[in-house]
Amino acid sequence: MSASDFCFSVGVREMKILLTNDDSIQAKGLAVLWSELKEIAEVVVVAPDRERSATGHGITMDIPLRAEKSYLFDGKAWAVNGTPADCVKLAVNCLLEEEPDLVIAGINRGSNLGVDIFYSGTVSGALEGIILGFPAIAVSVTEYLNPDYRYAASFTRKLAPKVFEKGICKDTLLNINVPSIAPEEIQGVEITRLGRRKYINSFEERVDPRGKAYYWLGGDVVDSIDESSARDTDVASISKRKVSVTPIQVDLTNYRAMETLRDFFDDLS
Amino acid sequence: MSASDFCFSVGVREMKILLTNDDSIQAKGLAVLWSELKEIAEVVVVAPDRERSATGHGITMDIPLRAEKSYLFDGKAWAVNGTPADCVKLAVNCLLEEEPDLVIAGINRGSNLGVDIFYSGTVSGALEGIILGFPAIAVSVTEYLNPDYRYAASFTRKLAPKVFEKGICKDTLLNINVPSIAPEEIQGVEITRLGRRKYINSFEERVDPRGKAYYWLGGDVVDSIDESSARDTDVASISKRKVSVTPIQVDLTNYRAMETLRDFFDDLS
Repeated sequence: MSASDFCFSVGVREMKILLTNDDSIQAKGLAVLWSELKEIAEVVVVAPDRERSATGHGITMDIPLRAEKSYLFDGKAWAVNGTPADCVKLAVNCLLEEEPDLVIAGINRGSNLGVDIFYSGTVSGALEGIILGFPAIAVSVTEYLNPDYRYAASFTRKLAPKVFEKGICKDTLLNINVPSIAPEEIQGVEITRLGRRKYINSFEERVDPRGKAYYWLGGDVVDSIDESSARDTDVASISKRKVSVTPIQVDLTNYRAMETLRDFFDDLS
Repeated sequence: MSASDFCFSVGVREMKILLTNDDSIQAKGLAVLWSELKEIAEVVVVAPDRERSATGHGITMDIPLRAEKSYLFDGKAWAVNGTPADCVKLAVNCLLEEEPDLVIAGINRGSNLGVDIFYSGTVSGALEGIILGFPAIAVSVTEYLNPDYRYAASFTRKLAPKVFEKGICKDTLLNINVPSIAPEEIQGVEITRLGRRKYINSFEERVDPRGKAYYWLGGDVVDSIDESSARDTDVASISKRKVSVTPIQVDLTNYRAMETLRDFFDDLS
């Protein structure tokens, strides 16, 4: 399916969107995004039955998956006991009557910038869309405790038909991060690359009532001034109160390294 | 720490390796690799307490992590109730007395080729090493049921000091796949890019004793003739009974797409 197979005038009403997330089927960010998207497309929601944040691109192989039909989202929804990647895989293979035109994951509560994307269930949902051959978008807002989803939702509503019409570069998803501020305070949109976030104090060690140590994963993010002012990065855009749009590719081969390595391995084989 | 900070003559004996996997601390592939590596380095094992295959780059945030000291591996080992990424993070932040020179994950039972790497706990362990700033290697053999680890183990033993000495390209891990055949049948080593595997029949639908449907994730891999004969791919190397060495980068930005997208977004902000 190439972008040129479609004409906008055919009617965006016909666009079919598979919507997922990692905060669970009862997350507010999912509901807010659905309310916008249902105005322009046929939307089916297939989302985890509980929070599956930080599951990375995990899939469930040791227990069987269940898909419970939900009354939410006009009854076009399933809750799955799996990860976002499971949801997309199961939706496309078993639940949907027709293939989606677009896979959207979000709106995630909390940003997915820089290396965050490796841990992110939200990005993973979109990635599974790409792996299965569909254009895909991941959307996050930068606030965890009291997020403002409004701009992220309306922006995605404008973006979806454009992606449907024009397509995205092959094997590439769009990772969108939106400042969690009032829509009128958003300072624009930037096309970005992944920044380099650093986390410190990753673990907090505690002792249980029986005297044994345990560790809570925590970690404060430290975006240095260098990073916040770095050219073109998602981290920098967010710090300027702008929306960041980062194209993420599926092919992780480091092609430049291939040449270097050929010398490296001369005497190994 | 750059490659040039080290001289091979300082003695590879001093090399410190953090070893992990996703098949659990009691997996044979881990033991076989450890037996080789302990001859050339100080090895500490920090591995999941149970199989954590296909966990992708998941990390554990909803329960605390525990690290049980193990008598295995000369007592320099911990079993962690988490994913391979958790293991590496916890090892570096809390368990190891000194930073490792190299993080190695494996030997995995079953190949990690093409898009497999997104789901792979093994690759994820190495990736976490890179994210934390250490050179890293992921090693897998292509057989699940009755794997031959011998060549993979001896190859990694030869490779580790070279990586220690020369370094790998920045922010890049080496993903090694080794045919599960007798060492003398291995046809050489190739530097490769990620191939494109396709899976079909992803789910098997069954009905439980109460009449409700459930789904087992399965999936047969289909490496088409095109793919097996494609130039430079990991899939093709394995089909020729060669070891594949694929450099994998952490930066997933699609830089070429950034330009295209700037036009795309002209009328969106």
